[in-house]
Amino acid sequence: MKTTEDKILLSHGNGGRIMHELISDFFVKHFGNRILEQQGDSAILPVYAAALAAGPHSGSAGNNKQAARGKSGLPEIAFTTDSFVIDPIFFPGGDIGKLAVCGTVNDLSVSGAVPLYLSASFIIEEGFPMKDLETIVRSMASEAKKAGVLIVTGDTKVVNKGKCDKLFINTSGIGMIDNASRLDKKISSIKPGDLIIINGALGEHGMAVMNARESFNFKTPLKSDCACLNYLIRDVLDNSSSVKFMRDPTRGGVATVMNELAGMIHLGIELSEPDLPVGKGVMAMCELLGFDPLYIANEGKVVMVASEKEGSRIVEVMKKNKLGKQSAIIGRVVKDHPGKVVLNTETGGKRILASLSGDPLPRIC
Amino acid sequence: MKTTEDKILLSHGNGGRIMHELISDFFVKHFGNRILEQQGDSAILPVYAAALAAGPHSGSAGNNKQAARGKSGLPEIAFTTDSFVIDPIFFPGGDIGKLAVCGTVNDLSVSGAVPLYLSASFIIEEGFPMKDLETIVRSMASEAKKAGVLIVTGDTKVVNKGKCDKLFINTSGIGMIDNASRLDKKISSIKPGDLIIINGALGEHGMAVMNARESFNFKTPLKSDCACLNYLIRDVLDNSSSVKFMRDPTRGGVATVMNELAGMIHLGIELSEPDLPVGKGVMAMCELLGFDPLYIANEGKVVMVASEKEGSRIVEVMKKNKLGKQSAIIGRVVKDHPGKVVLNTETGGKRILASLSGDPLPRIC
Repeated sequence: MKTTEDKILLSHGNGGRIMHELISDFFVKHFGNRILEQQGDSAILPVYAAALAAGPHSGSAGNNKQAARGKSGLPEIAFTTDSFVIDPIFFPGGDIGKLAVCGTVNDLSVSGAVPLYLSASFIIEEGFPMKDLETIVRSMASEAKKAGVLIVTGDTKVVNKGKCDKLFINTSGIGMIDNASRLDKKISSIKPGDLIIINGALGEHGMAVMNARESFNFKTPLKSDCACLNYLIRDVLDNSSSVKFMRDPTRGGVATVMNELAGMIHLGIELSEPDLPVGKGVMAMCELLGFDPLYIANEGKVVMVASEKEGSRIVEVMKKNKLGKQSAIIGRVVKDHPGKVVLNTETGGKRILASLSGDPLPRIC
Repeated sequence: MKTTEDKILLSHGNGGRIMHELISDFFVKHFGNRILEQQGDSAILPVYAAALAAGPHSGSAGNNKQAARGKSGLPEIAFTTDSFVIDPIFFPGGDIGKLAVCGTVNDLSVSGAVPLYLSASFIIEEGFPMKDLETIVRSMASEAKKAGVLIVTGDTKVVNKGKCDKLFINTSGIGMIDNASRLDKKISSIKPGDLIIINGALGEHGMAVMNARESFNFKTPLKSDCACLNYLIRDVLDNSSSVKFMRDPTRGGVATVMNELAGMIHLGIELSEPDLPVGKGVMAMCELLGFDPLYIANEGKVVMVASEKEGSRIVEVMKKNKLGKQSAIIGRVVKDHPGKVVLNTETGGKRILASLSGDPLPRIC
């Protein structure tokens, strides 16, 4: 490990630099395989190709590399997982159940996949109210229906009182992805001039949860943006082949996703502060508490990179969807300062947006 | 809900009757769809058929029923999930990491699928020692390698100290299953005279964990049977088409699995006490503490139903695998007492084996 900590810190779970060090120096190192090393939001599995080439009894996943290389023309399987430990479990705009469905649907969608099936695994604290569980389960069912996915398998564990905090939910998801939609293959085509696009306002999830947790009772209503983005994303992909990258800026916010991207493409990214959509409530709360909306978690947002030519058209497509009304071009890829993200401020200055290190908001998802 | 409890009890997670009521009256009711209602250890997903018939953009999972009915001749996808909250996380014979890999590999295998890919999602308590995490991650990597599966995607959440107990792991798994191996389609062919077969001794996981947790310090060594059974099960399925049911008797043990089966087939099951393989250590500990090995969790066992004609041959096949040395025919399906499981005791008596209700051993997996 690069980090010298001998104990797990809250920041190992915040989506920022320290978490990524843990993942790369620890999980990827030990579990290492080419699929895991892709490090997108979903793993793309060469299951179809293997099946067509060799049948299911051809051996283990480790042995079917050759089969996997076969060109089947069929879509492949996208696979992702997420555990949700949000506190509080009910918040304005949603609950842990809705979040668990949206989070996994979105992870599949931003990889370019069509989400189809989810698992739902519950770790419940002894004594948890049955009526709250029912509310959460109903919320998951309703959100899954809206997104057109089926919850097809599950698990329930109960732990003694005091050994977990109310309720944790894991959802894993399976989607289908065809070759043309595979965004993991397009990242290398990103070039200076490409545009950074987002489908709406920053930081609503994080600030709504923070407000609910701490009972600040801001007068401006704060509501999580928690939503399934699969139809919005499909609209974009069906209307433009120029999208080269998508990511849902959850833990660590837009700044953290942009830092990861800049690191991967070895180019610079500039964001334009005047163009960033930020709601009044989020802005007020961030100013009061000293947070930057660019680092606050979103659960209904997608950040995209697309060609300069098609940027405006993509924004128009998204604006037709109710989850994309405030879509905006917020920045661009540049040749300068490779690997770094720079904010062009309202006042005409420039500020480097570093990758998140500490964790200002633990248990935000 | 049939149960009148207004709070979650430990027994809602024990694998027995109360847990199954929670699942059927709650999760299946709200998430309800035909795939979930199969209620096997894995969901079998008509993904290939849908893809071949319609392509990935044909719409949502809920809309591709027609496509799913198409006969593709290709294998389908098996999908399963399990969260692990075992206490203690290290125990003789394994640790939470090894268990998390084996549990999901086995859930896929007993459905007749070839396990291929796993996800690994960690919920970690702040302050958890990094070296313990490394031990557990190495253990997962080693077990995955042995079983021929790849860990392809993951997630890490950290919660504040005191808000979870050290470490919880969710693994979800994807396998391939061809039509001939689909055990869910064979259960209706079970008939009186069919044999109940197990690959070895009962109760080793539960008693080893109990001993480690409570520090009874029994002189007879107790070691968990935690193991991946995919190759053993594949040997059986490749050598006999007469297997009609497989299940891994984890929480609730063999008696609970047999009760579920008896309920599904509306036939009786008789187990023969003299034929049950039980190790000395497990027997001694069960006698002292008043447990019945038939209700104790196993993590390296599979219970099968096969035709009378092929029972002995299946036992011979399993004995050739080191995880099947103590394989035995332990009972049979009968016309009498439909839906009930009866034990023919050593002393010539008969005893009804009811479904588990309370939870003698919480957090066993």
